[in-house]
Amino acid sequence: MTHPTPAAPEPPVRPAPAPDSFHEMWRHLLPVGRNSTTGGYRRFAWTGADADCRDWFREQARRRGLAYEVDRNGNQWAWLGDPAEGDAVVTGSHLDSVPDGGAFDGPLGVVSAFAALDELRRRGVRPAKPLGIVNFGDEEGARFGLACVGSRLTAGALTVDQAHRLTDADGITLPQAMETAGYDPDAIGPDPVRLGRIGAFVELHVEQGRALDLTGDRVGVASAIWPHGRWRFDFRGEANHAGTTRLADRHDPMLPYAETVLAARREAEQAGGVATFGKLAVEPNGVNAVPSLVRGWLDSRAADQERLDTVVGGVERAARAYAAAHGVQLDVERESFTPVVEFDHALRDRLARILGKDAGLKAPVLGTGAGHDAGILAGRVPTAMLFVRNPTGVSHSPAEFAAEDDCVAGVLALADVLEGLAAP
Amino acid sequence: MTHPTPAAPEPPVRPAPAPDSFHEMWRHLLPVGRNSTTGGYRRFAWTGADADCRDWFREQARRRGLAYEVDRNGNQWAWLGDPAEGDAVVTGSHLDSVPDGGAFDGPLGVVSAFAALDELRRRGVRPAKPLGIVNFGDEEGARFGLACVGSRLTAGALTVDQAHRLTDADGITLPQAMETAGYDPDAIGPDPVRLGRIGAFVELHVEQGRALDLTGDRVGVASAIWPHGRWRFDFRGEANHAGTTRLADRHDPMLPYAETVLAARREAEQAGGVATFGKLAVEPNGVNAVPSLVRGWLDSRAADQERLDTVVGGVERAARAYAAAHGVQLDVERESFTPVVEFDHALRDRLARILGKDAGLKAPVLGTGAGHDAGILAGRVPTAMLFVRNPTGVSHSPAEFAAEDDCVAGVLALADVLEGLAAP
Repeated sequence: MTHPTPAAPEPPVRPAPAPDSFHEMWRHLLPVGRNSTTGGYRRFAWTGADADCRDWFREQARRRGLAYEVDRNGNQWAWLGDPAEGDAVVTGSHLDSVPDGGAFDGPLGVVSAFAALDELRRRGVRPAKPLGIVNFGDEEGARFGLACVGSRLTAGALTVDQAHRLTDADGITLPQAMETAGYDPDAIGPDPVRLGRIGAFVELHVEQGRALDLTGDRVGVASAIWPHGRWRFDFRGEANHAGTTRLADRHDPMLPYAETVLAARREAEQAGGVATFGKLAVEPNGVNAVPSLVRGWLDSRAADQERLDTVVGGVERAARAYAAAHGVQLDVERESFTPVVEFDHALRDRLARILGKDAGLKAPVLGTGAGHDAGILAGRVPTAMLFVRNPTGVSHSPAEFAAEDDCVAGVLALADVLEGLAAP
Repeated sequence: MTHPTPAAPEPPVRPAPAPDSFHEMWRHLLPVGRNSTTGGYRRFAWTGADADCRDWFREQARRRGLAYEVDRNGNQWAWLGDPAEGDAVVTGSHLDSVPDGGAFDGPLGVVSAFAALDELRRRGVRPAKPLGIVNFGDEEGARFGLACVGSRLTAGALTVDQAHRLTDADGITLPQAMETAGYDPDAIGPDPVRLGRIGAFVELHVEQGRALDLTGDRVGVASAIWPHGRWRFDFRGEANHAGTTRLADRHDPMLPYAETVLAARREAEQAGGVATFGKLAVEPNGVNAVPSLVRGWLDSRAADQERLDTVVGGVERAARAYAAAHGVQLDVERESFTPVVEFDHALRDRLARILGKDAGLKAPVLGTGAGHDAGILAGRVPTAMLFVRNPTGVSHSPAEFAAEDDCVAGVLALADVLEGLAAP
């Protein structure tokens, strides 16, 4: 044995078997921040719904007798054992959502983390290493436009200055929002000591495509996250009366925007990536006014950098030509970018071995186009991801879904992984 | 003489010459409801900026010793003489604006009305008929999505039930908004007695195209308002993750919307009308989410009904084909429609004669694609419009402009018209 085996504190109450505790937690969290009209979630960073999720996390830690702490960037941690001992095994995800998102993206990873811990206790496992559960703040970037703010800050992948300049649609800055929510925005910044204590980070997440459904597996292991980014396209024309301005006299930015939307689909199809205009702001946005500004955000991803450059370069060239043809000004700004993330090969292979041996699961290894906190941490800490089957592939929608049996399989797989990684 | 000449009340203060009073009123009104960032106006119905405009109107009536009243629909009136005598000559326009609109659309007609009255007094004219100045409420429809609510209600062209169902973007209904502003929403409804007392209505308005600029005239007379309408296109697809959903699995409503925008321009060019998508709502409107809904509003107008039908029919057919090709559902709803309005020919010719004789103005007769309160009243009351030159044609924009000399020419032309129409 290369590690001493510290005595794990006895659980204060004997927890229910994992599936039971999973269902109870899931039921409790389900109504929080859900919009009654759309059925979708609106758990945006530092809002009331976010605070409710955070209260839930703290309560779960309390019930299990775990040490609870909030780090300088507002991420929540629950500990079994003392993280200062180092080589900790950490799992978790996030609880915030995209606008009208689904119930699974994020929360499945946090709920499964607590349920997996309950399962380890049920098995009588005494981990040889500190075990942590984390809820990273503001993963989706729904409010301030930048994803993974909590993990980026902690990893030093976002500077304090950059974070202070983040502003929501109402003009509220990130520091203002944090302060309103009772957090200290002056404390934010990189946290290398905390990261240095982590020996392995494993994030469980609902799959956001149909790869597992196509192979017929409940659980998979991630190989890599595609490189991806967000680009803002500002088409500036001239506001005018929609009834009286001759077509020939117009500089209508809606027209080159529309042409660019179609070009993005064409370029992505040709290069084999994805490209989406899903967010839009129009000024003045009046029924009888030719717009002065159409601002569209391009989200694009591809399996490798070269393909991504081909897609985005092609879209931008087309947009510039369309804008010029309509006498419309175009500014393109890259708002965020994440290069390809290869997860730790040794850890990935170890997960596949653990799952193959202990659970008899065939867990295929697959890439993903989605960004995750695990992708941010991967540059600093050995990191892996588990995916749970999504039968429709639908995500970022109220219709997002994973079957109960698959969720339970995910919890058991995560418990196997934690048991294996935290063994002496 | 067929009419008795009632004694007009003496003005309490000898007014300044028309151009002076025009400039003073203009300066006073200029900052009201102006956004300091865009420089555009946000004078939306029943808001604080609207109340400020209404206070201004009331104060102008008071200064001139005019009888002031607000009708059941919230339109403001100022009277020289007793309207109950009938065959009244009325002029005016509106003070509200589109989002980030210009200073002239609406206010020029109200300010010119007061200034023309000052000019009549300066000339020593004693009108033989009651003279009225009106500010119609909510002409632009910027808040509740329907134009000319004040004049429509008065003319019975909008039912009380329909008006009660109007709702703004925050879910506030028209009755709630009126009540908040201190008006009684239970009082609204048609006002045939009031309309029956009007012998002629003349609305002065800044031109919203470049016809007068092209002919080199300061002032023109309207012939007709083009038929026009607003159609809501709801493209409903499936929200999904923009990074992980394969292009082939998507039902992205942004794509058929974009194709429809381009089809609208093509159809309008071919048929010789105008068609504009200037207002848009996207759900969930997240950077990394394929939208579930893209809702675009089509505004279309043409010189005659047949051409308009050709444009809108063509756009709708194209949109249905595009939506079907993307597996997207499409609902099209006509939200408003106004048939062609021919202004009273006798009144129009009389205006042209008055202007030709008294002012030596060559006032060309021209059609317009813009809707106006005058268009609503034209079905009930002999109605005419005067246009003041707009050198760029820009309207519904902070850059909307009319030269000072042209505005003064408009005031003098309106004074000539009122003098001629109110003569015994």
